[in-house]
Amino acid sequence: MASSTQGQVITCKAAVAYEPNKPLVIEDVQVAPPQAGEVRIKILSTALCHTDHYTWSGKDPEGLFPCILGHEAAGVVESVGEGVTDVQPGDHVIPCYQAECKECKFCKSGKTNLCGKVRSATGAGVMMNDRKSRFSVNGKPIYHFMGTSTFSQYTVVHDVSVAKINPQAPLDKVCLLGCGVSTGLGAVWNTAKVEAGSIVAVFGLGTVGLAVAEGAKAAGAYRIIGIDIDSKKFDVAKNFGVTEFVNPKDHDKPIQQVLIDLTDGGVDYSFECIGNVSVMRAALECCHKGWGTSVIVGVAASGQEIATRPFQLVTGRVWKGTAFGGFKSRTQVPWLVEKYLKKEIKVDEYITHNMNLTDINEAFHLLHEGSCLRCVLAVQD
Amino acid sequence: MASSTQGQVITCKAAVAYEPNKPLVIEDVQVAPPQAGEVRIKILSTALCHTDHYTWSGKDPEGLFPCILGHEAAGVVESVGEGVTDVQPGDHVIPCYQAECKECKFCKSGKTNLCGKVRSATGAGVMMNDRKSRFSVNGKPIYHFMGTSTFSQYTVVHDVSVAKINPQAPLDKVCLLGCGVSTGLGAVWNTAKVEAGSIVAVFGLGTVGLAVAEGAKAAGAYRIIGIDIDSKKFDVAKNFGVTEFVNPKDHDKPIQQVLIDLTDGGVDYSFECIGNVSVMRAALECCHKGWGTSVIVGVAASGQEIATRPFQLVTGRVWKGTAFGGFKSRTQVPWLVEKYLKKEIKVDEYITHNMNLTDINEAFHLLHEGSCLRCVLAVQD
Ligand SMILES: NC(=O)c1ccc[n+]([C@@H]2O[C@H](COP(=O)([O-])OP(=O)(O)OC[C@H]3O[C@@H](n4cnc5c(N)ncnc54)[C@H](O)[C@@H]3O)[C@@H](O)[C@H]2O)c1
Ligand SMILES: NC(=O)c1ccc[n+]([C@@H]2O[C@H](COP(=O)([O-])OP(=O)(O)OC[C@H]3O[C@@H](n4cnc5c(N)ncnc54)[C@H](O)[C@@H]3O)[C@@H](O)[C@H]2O)c1
Ligand SMILES: [Zn+2]
Ligand SMILES: [Zn+2]
Ligand SMILES: [Zn+2]
Ligand SMILES: [Zn+2]
Repeated sequence: MASSTQGQVITCKAAVAYEPNKPLVIEDVQVAPPQAGEVRIKILSTALCHTDHYTWSGKDPEGLFPCILGHEAAGVVESVGEGVTDVQPGDHVIPCYQAECKECKFCKSGKTNLCGKVRSATGAGVMMNDRKSRFSVNGKPIYHFMGTSTFSQYTVVHDVSVAKINPQAPLDKVCLLGCGVSTGLGAVWNTAKVEAGSIVAVFGLGTVGLAVAEGAKAAGAYRIIGIDIDSKKFDVAKNFGVTEFVNPKDHDKPIQQVLIDLTDGGVDYSFECIGNVSVMRAALECCHKGWGTSVIVGVAASGQEIATRPFQLVTGRVWKGTAFGGFKSRTQVPWLVEKYLKKEIKVDEYITHNMNLTDINEAFHLLHEGSCLRCVLAVQD
Repeated sequence: MASSTQGQVITCKAAVAYEPNKPLVIEDVQVAPPQAGEVRIKILSTALCHTDHYTWSGKDPEGLFPCILGHEAAGVVESVGEGVTDVQPGDHVIPCYQAECKECKFCKSGKTNLCGKVRSATGAGVMMNDRKSRFSVNGKPIYHFMGTSTFSQYTVVHDVSVAKINPQAPLDKVCLLGCGVSTGLGAVWNTAKVEAGSIVAVFGLGTVGLAVAEGAKAAGAYRIIGIDIDSKKFDVAKNFGVTEFVNPKDHDKPIQQVLIDLTDGGVDYSFECIGNVSVMRAALECCHKGWGTSVIVGVAASGQEIATRPFQLVTGRVWKGTAFGGFKSRTQVPWLVEKYLKKEIKVDEYITHNMNLTDINEAFHLLHEGSCLRCVLAVQD
């Protein structure tokens, strides 16, 4: 199936971040054809995630401007470059910021979902082939972001970053499997490996924290304690499996002590889904002596550090972290989509708002309102 | 086999620490008979370990004085209190500072070697039964230490803290299995679970670090990199399996970077066997992205904290710690003794000095000389 645009530069709408902390600009952008090992995708739906906001805000020292943000999306392959065999035009896909080449030291280790193949390019906002961008506005290049740049009607990504999914899946829903929901589920299933009967603490009840709760419930956790400074979160959280709610503001004691008291010694597993380094410490220290495992999911601001007494670890606690929930993107995102289609995992329930790409600045503001979990943008008009 | 001293107060020699940082005093000490659930042991051999020195130095805020230190020892049961069935007079035993009651939440968890049964008493320098000490000098009580107090010709311990061992084992050797050697081996086998082919870094090449190297070699590690600021350690370390040696003083770069460069991305497992919080950070950060696991074995001074960027964990490194190498004391110390008797693990090789209990102050000084690994004291005359 050859599209009429194949081999051509496509001019389309995209939200360009010209400067940190300035409104994104909806622009006509030129998207060059995919080169060898690259895939050009027509993006149908994209959600917004905190990592987009973090880079946009200018707090990310590795953020490059001007750029096209966005990394939680779904679309259809428009055309492929030389040598691309795993996907073809018309395939339904989710672009993945964690690549999976199946060949590098990381992919072959069997121990991690991180992949080294295209990282040096995606970190620099360019494509591997020529270390250049495929995006431009009036001839001036615009950087890629996280190897995905989904705030655009068309994007170009490396073939190792494309998960081909069941075409029956609604793209305006499963786009969420490109980041937040998958991350939360995987943190429980892959990184912590929570067992039935466990006591679990979830710090932060946004999309990621709720997906952790959902994953923990599926794993058979016995108590799932949700911790948030916004008490409004509890009603929604119940639907995702949270059995008890603690607001640190209701207590004088440090939150780790509150949890230790509540659980006769501490929780079996804890998850930090906020990005706050003092909460990361509390999440470790509320774990049960001897075996409690804490997983850092939230992304802290650059330069911030976590700390604790080494005695916390010497007496048996384990400190871990997770990136994309430990899921191997090309292999496992399609599997997550199937689970969604079989109604084994929630997705629709995380979508609180729907808008158009042109409303993206408003959507960015919503991200910081307690009532918004995920806002999905329709990217084509 | 009833001993003539059964039921009697025994007066014997012990090294009493009256005050922090003052020489120990060899005294006539009264050792009361064991009460219900207690065992009185005639100590034949004891080694010195850094934890003894740490408490003696006054740096341990939980240290209690006057006390009888010592926790790496072996002896023969002299008599037992009411209800003690697992050992009887004449049994050869190793007193264990990690108890194993087989009944508490910890013991039954299957996830840890820590035991909660007698901790509140051993932490307070007394016995569970009456929360009093069995040691006195002229009627004035002397605190117990770590539930072992082996710098004495006789000591009283809880029955859950006694490992019965093969009577063929030489007590002046296997006393080392009461702490340092077991800790190092177990850190590798139980806590890290090092696999064949791994690259391992060992920070600190004292007894604990050398036992880590030995354990890693037995596990089939491919490269075992020893790191010490004392280059004299390398010759000995070779005999324990260390394949490469790095002295941080020979490098301008941070030691974590030196190791990353040396290993094309970092080590699979690292072990901190010093007790230095900045080395603990380096040990974590020299681990390979995606899977590297760092185990804290060294005990840092009170109040000190470890720190790192959370990104280190989010990108797949794991931070753990170990107490007594994760070995269940009563179950596994006898197994370690058998392994020694079958020449499957070294013990003799860690003993660099032999002295008498009366030389204990000199032995304490030796602990801080590079040439001393373990000094074993003959406790009876
Ligand atoms: N590791 C990964 O691969 C990965 C992937 C996606 C997202 N993330 C990160 O996960 C984090 C959560 O993402 P999200 O989309 O769910 O965010 P969110 O903002 O929707 O949710 C955060 C929640 O934490 C609560 N909170 C804030 N401060 C708190 C505190 N001190 N104590 C308790 N609760 C507090 C907020 O009220 C909110 O409900 C972010 O840091 C994001 O960057 C990481
Ligand atoms: N977790 C446990 O259950 C447990 C049990 C026993 C001992 N320990 C602890 O393990 C640690 C090691 O015990 P040990 O008996 O082998 O001690 P040791 O003093 O014999 O060995 C420490 C080694 O570290 C080296 N060193 C010191 N500073 C260094 C630095 N900055 N960089 C590199 N090397 C450095 C020294 O030269 C020495 O060779 C101690 O802290 C002890 O308290 C812990
Ligand atoms: Zn995201
Ligand atoms: Zn790869
Ligand atoms: Zn010790
Ligand atoms: Zn127990």
